[in-house]
Amino acid sequence: MRLFWIAVALLTFSAQANEPTPLDYAEFDACALASGETLAPCRIGYRTYGTLNAGQSNAVLVPTWHTGKTDAHVFLASPDVIDPERYFIIMVDALANGVSSSPSNHSKTSGSSFPTITIADMVDTQHRLLTEHLGIDSLHAVMGISMGGMQTFEWVVRYPDFADRAIAVIGSTRLPTFDIAFWTARIQTLKWFRDCDRCDDSRLAMQAMWMTALVPTKLGEEVSREQTMATIAERAAADTLTIAESWDIQRQAEAMNTHNVARDFDNDMTKAAARVSSDLLIIVGTDDRVVTPEPAKTFATLTGAALIEFDKDCGHGEPGCNAAAFNEAVRLFLRDGTDRPAASAR
Amino acid sequence: MRLFWIAVALLTFSAQANEPTPLDYAEFDACALASGETLAPCRIGYRTYGTLNAGQSNAVLVPTWHTGKTDAHVFLASPDVIDPERYFIIMVDALANGVSSSPSNHSKTSGSSFPTITIADMVDTQHRLLTEHLGIDSLHAVMGISMGGMQTFEWVVRYPDFADRAIAVIGSTRLPTFDIAFWTARIQTLKWFRDCDRCDDSRLAMQAMWMTALVPTKLGEEVSREQTMATIAERAAADTLTIAESWDIQRQAEAMNTHNVARDFDNDMTKAAARVSSDLLIIVGTDDRVVTPEPAKTFATLTGAALIEFDKDCGHGEPGCNAAAFNEAVRLFLRDGTDRPAASAR
Repeated sequence: MRLFWIAVALLTFSAQANEPTPLDYAEFDACALASGETLAPCRIGYRTYGTLNAGQSNAVLVPTWHTGKTDAHVFLASPDVIDPERYFIIMVDALANGVSSSPSNHSKTSGSSFPTITIADMVDTQHRLLTEHLGIDSLHAVMGISMGGMQTFEWVVRYPDFADRAIAVIGSTRLPTFDIAFWTARIQTLKWFRDCDRCDDSRLAMQAMWMTALVPTKLGEEVSREQTMATIAERAAADTLTIAESWDIQRQAEAMNTHNVARDFDNDMTKAAARVSSDLLIIVGTDDRVVTPEPAKTFATLTGAALIEFDKDCGHGEPGCNAAAFNEAVRLFLRDGTDRPAASAR
Repeated sequence: MRLFWIAVALLTFSAQANEPTPLDYAEFDACALASGETLAPCRIGYRTYGTLNAGQSNAVLVPTWHTGKTDAHVFLASPDVIDPERYFIIMVDALANGVSSSPSNHSKTSGSSFPTITIADMVDTQHRLLTEHLGIDSLHAVMGISMGGMQTFEWVVRYPDFADRAIAVIGSTRLPTFDIAFWTARIQTLKWFRDCDRCDDSRLAMQAMWMTALVPTKLGEEVSREQTMATIAERAAADTLTIAESWDIQRQAEAMNTHNVARDFDNDMTKAAARVSSDLLIIVGTDDRVVTPEPAKTFATLTGAALIEFDKDCGHGEPGCNAAAFNEAVRLFLRDGTDRPAASAR
């Protein structure tokens, strides 16, 4: 009976840990952008988990993945991954994700008039959130997945003294040809979606294209060949994307396509890598065709970062594809730094 | 000096072998289709190389790949691959390729009114070309690449006593989920291309999508990241695709999506494989994301066929990616049958 109540307590705790905390905002009059334009007003959404310690030494920043909002990242605030009992976790909505200033929500420059942004712009606004709004001048770690991994790479190059540790998961330092073509096809399809006013053909195309971003054998386990067309049609019918939101996706996709942490260093990745002083863990998927792994692997070599490469069946499926190994690697790296996760994952 | 003239003679011979022979046609009043519809009239284009021997034992049929015409297949009629001095090579234009009866050229049912066709329909018309038009009742071999490989698999199941040998190169016995999604995205984009009357956005999308069908690292060697957008734009501007031709592509893509050599065998690939009596060589690319290799590999297991798997960097790039190994495997298999190519390739 006592065991039963302990189990219930644990379940309750898990359930609480998996509920997003309330959304807060940092409101700035204006944010300067890499393009030279200004975003005014400029709002950054965030949620926190845990408590900042007296020495301000336990803050972990988690920027969002492409189209993701902080509420979808709550699973990371867990004793298994980033323990909210131990860390003060700040999950931050990246620009143009529909929560922070975005084409879909901006009072003055909505839709196509929303300026083009960069991954560096996302990072700069997050730096202001921390320093100006939250009064935090250093991080124990920054960790992001996919486009969040791109922001993580930008963080450690752009603000090299800020984060003691950094974990870039299925992210990229700058997109290679394949990835740029991938997002270009996506952006073109968004134009079609708007031009034809959300026509079924464009939505079917988008769903079909997303399927081909997956690992073929894994996709086949998920959807049978006989159900392919029906599944594409079902997913298209269930897709609630609006034209306003299509601009959010486009501005973030454009930001990825121009992403390059070596931009301010003569386009020389060796020089960019030399800036890094954070202890760095890089996680990639061998067969990832959404964010292909080569740039991240190259950066691991240039920086001497710990590198974990998940097997070819995972594609862009991290961290869910190898959840146990992923969770352990992140948990141990946050606690102990470089040596442990690399050793435990190999 | 004598050596010089021999070299010139060889070069001349090579040059001659690389010129397409004249295009011929077999004209039928009508062709019955798997759909129950009839294609009338029904024309099949073909070109031959070499001479049929007295025993009619040296004919090799080569059906075309997706959107390919026989003139693009002439490189296979070479002493290095299928020697025209030794074999009577019949290259045949698959239905809907713009040469044989197609949406773009049909006098009565052009464009969208052209009936849907199947890979089996392609094979049936080729069987009629051989038996009714050319008076050939058996083949030394059938060999096809990509959609030609799909026709090859259909040949050996549908007409199991016809070809002594068969070589299916980067083909498929039936398309799995990933491949169907790939062609569905393509078909949707063709609809857009027509709806917007060949607008630039649709052409950019098609070129960008094709790039993402390639192996990322190989693509990066071919096109630098800085040149990605410009290259997509150049290729889109150079694309001469017409709306009429877009229907050719669509009908062939639909044929691939419904392709299934087990269709008449309770959808049971083991039963389909049991039909095969041809000596069979199957060549696949490990990392092929246009025609993914699993179905062909499964069929190799079911039939005991010789299997050559080219490495992950080739993608859908066969046979050019490993030309020397490919040529040797085909040449030896046509000459000696099963044992040699498998042994030589491993």
